[in-house]
This record gives sequence, C-alpha cells and structure tokens, in this order.
Amino acid sequence: MECPGLIVAPLTPFDHELNVDETRLRRQIDYVIEDCRADMVVAAGVETQEYTYLSLDERKALIRRTVELVGGRVPVMVGVSHPALKTAIALAHEAEILGAAAVQLLAPLRPFAGPPTRDDLVSYFETIARETGLPITLYLNPGPGAEVSIADTIALAKLPRVQFIKESSRDLARVSRLIAEIDRAGHARYFTTMQMLLITLLLGGSGATMPPPACEIARLIVDAFVAKDYQRAAEFQQQFALFPAKWMHRGLAPVMKAAMNQIGIPVGDPYPPYAPLTREEVNELAACLKTTVLARRKLVEAAE
Amino acid sequence: MECPGLIVAPLTPFDHELNVDETRLRRQIDYVIEDCRADMVVAAGVETQEYTYLSLDERKALIRRTVELVGGRVPVMVGVSHPALKTAIALAHEAEILGAAAVQLLAPLRPFAGPPTRDDLVSYFETIARETGLPITLYLNPGPGAEVSIADTIALAKLPRVQFIKESSRDLARVSRLIAEIDRAGHARYFTTMQMLLITLLLGGSGATMPPPACEIARLIVDAFVAKDYQRAAEFQQQFALFPAKWMHRGLAPVMKAAMNQIGIPVGDPYPPYAPLTREEVNELAACLKTTVLARRKLVEAAE
Amino acid sequence: MECPGLIVAPLTPFDHELNVDETRLRRQIDYVIEDCRADMVVAAGVETQEYTYLSLDERKALIRRTVELVGGRVPVMVGVSHPALKTAIALAHEAEILGAAAVQLLAPLRPFAGPPTRDDLVSYFETIARETGLPITLYLNPGPGAEVSIADTIALAKLPRVQFIKESSRDLARVSRLIAEIDRAGHARYFTTMQMLLITLLLGGSGATMPPPACEIARLIVDAFVAKDYQRAAEFQQQFALFPAKWMHRGLAPVMKAAMNQIGIPVGDPYPPYAPLTREEVNELAACLKTTVLARRKLVEAAE
Amino acid sequence: MECPGLIVAPLTPFDHELNVDETRLRRQIDYVIEDCRADMVVAAGVETQEYTYLSLDERKALIRRTVELVGGRVPVMVGVSHPALKTAIALAHEAEILGAAAVQLLAPLRPFAGPPTRDDLVSYFETIARETGLPITLYLNPGPGAEVSIADTIALAKLPRVQFIKESSRDLARVSRLIAEIDRAGHARYFTTMQMLLITLLLGGSGATMPPPACEIARLIVDAFVAKDYQRAAEFQQQFALFPAKWMHRGLAPVMKAAMNQIGIPVGDPYPPYAPLTREEVNELAACLKTTVLARRKLVEAAE
Repeated sequence: MECPGLIVAPLTPFDHELNVDETRLRRQIDYVIEDCRADMVVAAGVETQEYTYLSLDERKALIRRTVELVGGRVPVMVGVSHPALKTAIALAHEAEILGAAAVQLLAPLRPFAGPPTRDDLVSYFETIARETGLPITLYLNPGPGAEVSIADTIALAKLPRVQFIKESSRDLARVSRLIAEIDRAGHARYFTTMQMLLITLLLGGSGATMPPPACEIARLIVDAFVAKDYQRAAEFQQQFALFPAKWMHRGLAPVMKAAMNQIGIPVGDPYPPYAPLTREEVNELAACLKTTVLARRKLVEAAE
Repeated sequence: MECPGLIVAPLTPFDHELNVDETRLRRQIDYVIEDCRADMVVAAGVETQEYTYLSLDERKALIRRTVELVGGRVPVMVGVSHPALKTAIALAHEAEILGAAAVQLLAPLRPFAGPPTRDDLVSYFETIARETGLPITLYLNPGPGAEVSIADTIALAKLPRVQFIKESSRDLARVSRLIAEIDRAGHARYFTTMQMLLITLLLGGSGATMPPPACEIARLIVDAFVAKDYQRAAEFQQQFALFPAKWMHRGLAPVMKAAMNQIGIPVGDPYPPYAPLTREEVNELAACLKTTVLARRKLVEAAE
Repeated sequence: MECPGLIVAPLTPFDHELNVDETRLRRQIDYVIEDCRADMVVAAGVETQEYTYLSLDERKALIRRTVELVGGRVPVMVGVSHPALKTAIALAHEAEILGAAAVQLLAPLRPFAGPPTRDDLVSYFETIARETGLPITLYLNPGPGAEVSIADTIALAKLPRVQFIKESSRDLARVSRLIAEIDRAGHARYFTTMQMLLITLLLGGSGATMPPPACEIARLIVDAFVAKDYQRAAEFQQQFALFPAKWMHRGLAPVMKAAMNQIGIPVGDPYPPYAPLTREEVNELAACLKTTVLARRKLVEAAE
Repeated sequence: MECPGLIVAPLTPFDHELNVDETRLRRQIDYVIEDCRADMVVAAGVETQEYTYLSLDERKALIRRTVELVGGRVPVMVGVSHPALKTAIALAHEAEILGAAAVQLLAPLRPFAGPPTRDDLVSYFETIARETGLPITLYLNPGPGAEVSIADTIALAKLPRVQFIKESSRDLARVSRLIAEIDRAGHARYFTTMQMLLITLLLGGSGATMPPPACEIARLIVDAFVAKDYQRAAEFQQQFALFPAKWMHRGLAPVMKAAMNQIGIPVGDPYPPYAPLTREEVNELAACLKTTVLARRKLVEAAE
C-alpha cells in the first residue's frame, strides 16, 4: 500500500432478516474503491462494521464476500480479532488462504478486571504472529479492546510482524508522540481517525482508517495533502468538525449508515438493538452534509 | 433458590492443549456443591470463568458438561452473553433444553463508541426475553459490558423476565441505593461480589456471585448471617480484605486459580496470554490464605 | 476521641450578604453536639462546609467561631487544607493556638497535570508535620484533592503524625483493604462516609465523618453497633440508601442544607452559584426523610 | 490582540525562601516578549505558573509585578480564578485598575461531588461579568477546574463578556467541533495548547496559550502558518511530539522550568513538594531540546 494511505472499512448492510445484504454491499464497495479510491479495504475488522453481531459463520462469509467483491482492485486487510485465541488464529489462516494483504487484531481487553500487562500483550501478538505470515495491524480501541499505554504501544510496534497501527483515540498529545516514536522511527505505519487525518499526515503519520462516506471527504484531504495544497486540505478537514460528532450519541455505525442512505448508496439500519437516527436527526444530518463535499453526490443521487 | 443465596461460578481448568480438563472440573464442582454448599452454579457465565477464550463449540460443551457434573444437586444458571444476538438466543434455547434454572446475560457494551441508551438496553433484554421462558439475570460488568446508570438498571430490573441482577462494582453508594430500589422494592433479586457480601445482606440484598475458593469463605458469612451471628459474619468478611485485592493486578481468574491450587483442588493456570502468579506471589498468597478459614483445608490437603 | 467515632462537619449557614450567619451556626452546633453526640467537630475542613468560597479572613473567623461555639464540649479538628503551603502552615499554627485536637489536610491535587508522586505526597505531609505538634488527618477526596493509590495511602498512614484518615470513596474493595492494612495494622484510625459507616465498623474501621443531619442517623448506627444490636444498626444504615443519593446531582451541601431546613434547624441556601433544591425536589426529599429517624424530629419542629 | 495569537504564561521563579525572584522574572518576561513575540502575557492565570501556591498577597504582588515588567509592550491578561467568589471579584477589580486587557477565569470545580450544572456555570460567569468591564477568558482545565461538556462550553461562549476560551484538552474531536461552533461561529476566540497549535490554526481557531520556552517554538509555527508555509509549520509542530510529553509524569511546570534552565534563562526549581527533574531526566531533556529550534539558543547561552 502506498502511503499516505486511506484505509476504508465498508459498513455492513443487513436485510430484514438481519442477514448481510450482498447487493448493497457490492454497490458500497464499488463506491469505496472507484469513487473514494481506498488504498486498502478492511473486511470485518472494526466495530463500526458491526461484525461482532455476526455468528462466526456469518462473519467468515462476510470476509469471503468482501474479498470477492473487492476483486483484487485494492489490497484487503482481514479483521481477525476474536476473544477466543483459537478462533482468531483460524481467522488468520483463512485470511492467508483468501490472499489478504494483512490481518487486523484488536489489543484485547483483559476480561477479568484490570489492564493486560505488557508481557500479556506481547505474548498475545507473538502467538498470532507465529501462526501467520501476514503483516499484522495492531488495532487500538479502548472499550471493546484494552487501553494500551504509550510505552506498551511502542513495545508492540517493535514486534517485526506488527507493521501497521490503527489508533482510535483523538488524543493529539498521545498521537503526536506515537507518530514520532513509531512511524517516523521506522517501527510501523501509524493510522488514525477521520478527525485526526490532516494533522496525522502533517506530523509524519501514514493515514487513517474509517468507514464510508467519511472516506470520500478523507480522499480529498489526502489528495490535497499530497499536492501540497494544505489550505485546501484544511478546508476539507473542517468538514469533519460537526460530522459525525454531533450525532455520536447514536454511535458511529448508525451515523455513517444514515449518511450513506442520504447520499444515495443505501446500507439500511444499524443492527438491533441500536436505533437508527430519528427523522429529525436525519434532517439535521442532511443539512450538515449539504455543507460538505458530499452535497454534490447527494444532489446527483437525489435526481436519479 | 433460597435467599440469601450463594451463587458460584466454577473456574475453568485447562490442560496442556488448552482443552477443558474435565477431571479437574468434576473435582471442583463437587467441592463447590458439597463443601461450599453453593445455592446455584453458573455455567460459562462470568468472565472469571474464561469462557470468552473458548470457541462456541467448546463453550457449549463446557455448559453441557457443567450441567451434567452438577447432576441436579443444585440449580444451574447458564451464561448466554455473546456479542452476536443470534448466538445469545441459540445459547438461551440450549439452556432451556438442558434444564437450566436461569440464563445470565451481560448488559452489552455498545461496540462503536458511547454507552447504549436505555431504549437500546431494554430492547435487547426484551428480545432475549421473547426467546426463552427462563428467568434472566441482568449481569452488570462495566468493561466487558456496558456501564449502566442507576436509572437504567432500575428500568431493566422492572422487566418481568429480569429476576436477578449480578452487580460487579464495589461502589457502596450505588449498591445501597439499588438494593433499596430493586430488591427491597420487589423488582429483582440483587447479588453482588465477595467484598460486598455482608453489607449486601445487611441492607436487604440477596447474596453474591463468585468463583471458588472465595465461596468457601462466603458460605461461612452467609451461614453466620442467617444464624444472626453478625460478629462472626464480620470476622469472615474481613478475610476478603487482602484476598484477592493484593493480587488483582494479575486479574481475578489467575488469583483464584492460584488459591485453588494452594488448597489442593488444582485447576491449573490461566488461559494464555495471561500469566499465572509468580512463585513469589504464590508464596505471599499462601501466607495470606493461612490467615483465613481456607487454612485448615490447605493443611489437610497438603498432608495427603 | 473515643472510637468508634462520629466526626461531624457542621454546614456553613450564610445570610443574604453571603456572610456566615452565626446564630444559625450556634443552633446547628448545639444540635450536632447535644442531639447527635458528635465525638469530634470539624471546623472548615471538608468541602461540604463550603469553606473554599470564603476569603482567608472569613475562613479564619469561621474556625475561631466554631471553636468558641463548641466551647470545649468535644474536641475540634481544624481544616488547614489550602493550595498555598504557607497558608496551610499558618492555619495549622492558628489551630494550635485555638486548642484544636487535630488538623485535617487534603492530599493535594497536583495542579499541573498528572497525579503527585508518593515522594511529593510524603514530602508535603512531612513539611506540615514539622510545623505543628497536632495530630494530622489525611483527607482523601479525589476531585478537589488527589487520587491517592492504596500503596501511597499506606505510606502516608505510616508517617507518625498522620493519626487519622478520612476516606471519601465508596469503593468497598479499596476501603476493606485499607482498614486492614492501616487501622487494624495500627498505623492510623480510618474514617469513611455515611454510606460506608456500618461496614466500616464491622471491618474494624474507626467511624465516619459527615455533616448534619446525616450524623443523627449515624449516631444511632454507632450506638446500635456498640450495643451489638447489628440488626438495628443495619436498619438505620438502610436509611442512607436513598438519602442523600437521590439528590446528589445537586451536590452534598445543597442536599444536607435542604434536609436541615426540613428538620427545623435552618441553615439557608448553598453558596452561589450552586442552586438550592427546587420545590419539587424538597418535597421528594421530605417524603424520603419521613421514612427515616429524622421524621420524629421534623414533626416536633414543625409543631413549634 | 491580533489573531492568530500566541498567549504566553511566564513561569514563576522562586528564590530559596520561596519568594518570587523578580530578577529572573524580568529576564524571562523580556525573553517572552522580545524573543518569542508573545501577543499577550498571562499574569498568574494558569496552574503551570504555580500561582495556587502563593498567598493572596503574594499573588497580587506577582500580578502587579508582571504588569510592570511587561510595561505596556503587549496586553496583559490577569488570572482571577479563585475558589472564593469574592476574592475572584476583588482580583477582577484589581485587574481593571492595572489596565489589564482581559481576565482569565477557570470554570470552577464543584467542590462537593458531581459536576456543576449549566445553570451553575452560566450564573458564575454572569456574576463575574457584572463586576468587571473587561473581556473574560473562559479557562477550561478539568482537574483543578470542572469538566465542561461541549454543549455547556458553547452556552458559556455565547455570553457576551466571554470573548476568549482557553482549552486544555488534547481531544481533537472535541476541539474540532468547538472551533467550528464557537470560533468560526463568531462567539469567542478559541485557544488551545502547544500540541494542538497547528491543527487549531488550520481549523480556524485563534491560537494557543503556553509557558516558555515552548512559546519560542510556537512563535515559529504561527509565523510559518501566517506565511502559508505549512510544511515548515508542520516541521516545527513536530518538535512538540516528545517535548514535553516524555517528562510529563513530572508535571508541566517542572519540565518547562528545566527547559528554561537549559536554554540559559534560569527560573529555578518547582515549588515544593514537587520535585525538579533528576539529573538523568535533565540530560535526556537536553538531548531532546538539541533536536529543536531551541538548540541554537542553548548553544549561544552556553557560550556566554
């Protein structure tokens, strides 16, 4: 993957029986690759993809289908995070067979109180590394996963197989330091979030991971950055000031699904019990999206 | 189940291939029922049982085996918590077939940032309640599960099928209030932790849930409480002042496994990557256990 | 002071010009000493006394007046917490001149990010200890003061001059351990809060600190405990289940002031900008207090 | 003040008797104004200035002396935060007399548990606003001050007298949104921290507040930004990746004092009980500073 890189995690559309809707998934993946020019696609790797609600068989089917639908146009990173170690290993084996470019693995929450130690974390990642030849993305997402200290993050980044880091915090003091001590130090490539994208690039980080349609705005930020048009990059970055923050009490997946529905690439509702945005919230979101680069697409789609 | 109730969650012994060691499980369950007089046994329901590391098939096998080994001597509550809704429902169906007395269900972490709303939580528990005729234990364990406010806990307790609550916090301001507004108000039975057991009973709560060998001490607390020998109950409660707190940086499962190994009912090491206590830590733990009622058992066992 | 001990921190009544209302202070102190039989009175020592809103001269006047109004009936502990070290020392000198029995000193918040180290804390308490011959109460109140770890609390408790500890948390795992390692170990006397009073006594702690009128309920808990009537003690302890928890979004001082106004010993409103309870909240509080031992007093007073 | 603005809070040098060392203060203020071209100087306004350790008279003297030493070269903002409302008002009156350009006021911690409500906060700021004609800086610093939600921050920013906001968090999701909803919306000017400076400017914020010598690096960031040389701005911003983060366990004031001592503008040690950096830490800091623009100054000074 070229850097700076835009890694995109497609949302998971469900039908009325809560099965994955493959038609909508296909349409979305085409959008992500053709329109947003994702540098890499994540299959069932981040919580916003609602993969945790799937049974293991459903999740494996989603991974396979995602790889097929990407069709080699860009590399695919397969999420192998699972509380059960053997299941994570089985998913890594499957990723290898499917031709994945990398696996993404959440720094695991210690389930019985207190954070994992550095030894716990290193041992865990080394165990997975012994089982796969693929590069590993260390996925940091406190809540579903562990809170990993700066020192422990650096220790994990120094493992040879850990070649990418996906950071979910918006703590710029932490991220500034980790970009310097990990990415600029040559240990691993550092990826952050949509809110952090421009400053990540300016500080020498490698990019960001996010779902659509945020990735359409992010594409323009990356392009402007590469073209050294920093003012334009900043204008696009400002489009992440209110979107998605103002609706985050609903959670990221519901907001992004609502935005996709707005721009004419429908992906349906969030998996229950999480509620979609109310009609009023959707209207406010639509008004906000009109102030972004997504507005054009929306109008085009609305005219269809 | 009689109240006050002592609910016990057996630890999961693993062999060298990380499969469940049924011989050790049997020995432990006998201890829990015969020696500690558990009022109910939990099958694969709390994180200390390390069930999250198991594949789904392994977990189902553990549940079935636990029910068999209990053999009807006491009721069994089956843990059905699973990130995937359909899997949780399938586990609830299985629990019913196995003759379980109740199912235990974790208030789920919203996986994509921010806490679930009250509507999310109520909808989730109602969905499960429609799928099973069994009483439901609302399991509160922030970290693996959601942080649930006092008001939302009360709302969930008022659901007819929610008949038990397992609280994991040691916040006595919260628990005092919830015992009053839930247990004494007649909505559900309130169970807490070993550290909270005596004050829970004194305030009108219903008991506590814990793994062995803590449950051996807890049995004496409950017995003394029922006998209205409160001073003696307090003396036993003091035995939870240092055990397990002093070793909790290792996590509850490793400490309890080390204590079981000490008292001669071996259950092996924690599931990787979590480390067992070091030799020095084991020695300190042994010295501490000598000051508790577990000392006698230990000496007896050591003499075998 | 005899132990178990009930330490009471009178609320600070303000008049319309926001000066201390001495008439109401006198009435309240008589209530605290004569009716509630406080074992010790705190002068301007805990935040619920709203002393932080006072200028230094006003605070000194409040301390002197409190000592005078207590009039030697019980020992007085003077609060000397102040962000400025020299001011804290000056207050300690004044306490000595006034014949105080002890000084109370908040474990200080490090004002510029991050917690104080153990060395910082020990050095701070040693500096004050060199300046006064009085026993020191280590006051733990994270928020206004530092979050102090279990290990650091024990280190401070071992300082010879630190003879009392006032803990504000309701974390029973923490408090159980600290009572064992500090109070039962002979390093210092451990005092907690109204919610924790009975279990503190049962575990071997020394008592609790609180404002009126909670102390009237607490008196009965302590008396029943001393009389070994633990069931009765538990019944009184249950009266702290809803009061003050249900109104704590207003803060402890406003709730306690409202309760005092209800029982006929008026102390006015909280210091601005903090709002008194609304009429509706007062009515709910009154209904709650009717279920406690304060009900009788209230009726008597209402008849006056 | 011109925007983007660099607001500088000089450190407070203490002599061996813990009195303010005016000679060193003068030298530092000249550095801040002449070399770093501060757009505004803060007198006793942020915790890094260690003003909370001063008695009220000492603090007033520090404010007066700072105003004198600045000598009208740039505007001065006077810190009036004080737990006692009347004292904060008295400080605001004094600021006016001294010709201050603004007052800075911490969003106050509610001292008796729980956060202040929006009404509490608005009422507090309105009370101060009635007492002074000066613009007010809303100072957000959770810990010493309250944690203020996004919605409450916006409500305070809409008060006419609140014209500046100083944000201490490094949460870019929060700050992105607040710059859009406050600064770009015209309610108040938004200032952040050294780590956030470049992205703050790119998103349309107004600048940052910080102590020396960080402000010397920040000056170059602001100058490069104004000159639209964003790559150069980013290079300077990267100099805040490790400095001060790697030494923040000591606290910001000790790190900044150590850095000033290194660059030849000595300001002594932190106020007790906080410890200065160890010799080893100073050496590591010196090595880090050599990689920044402060290196040149340091060499020059070392040669003197």
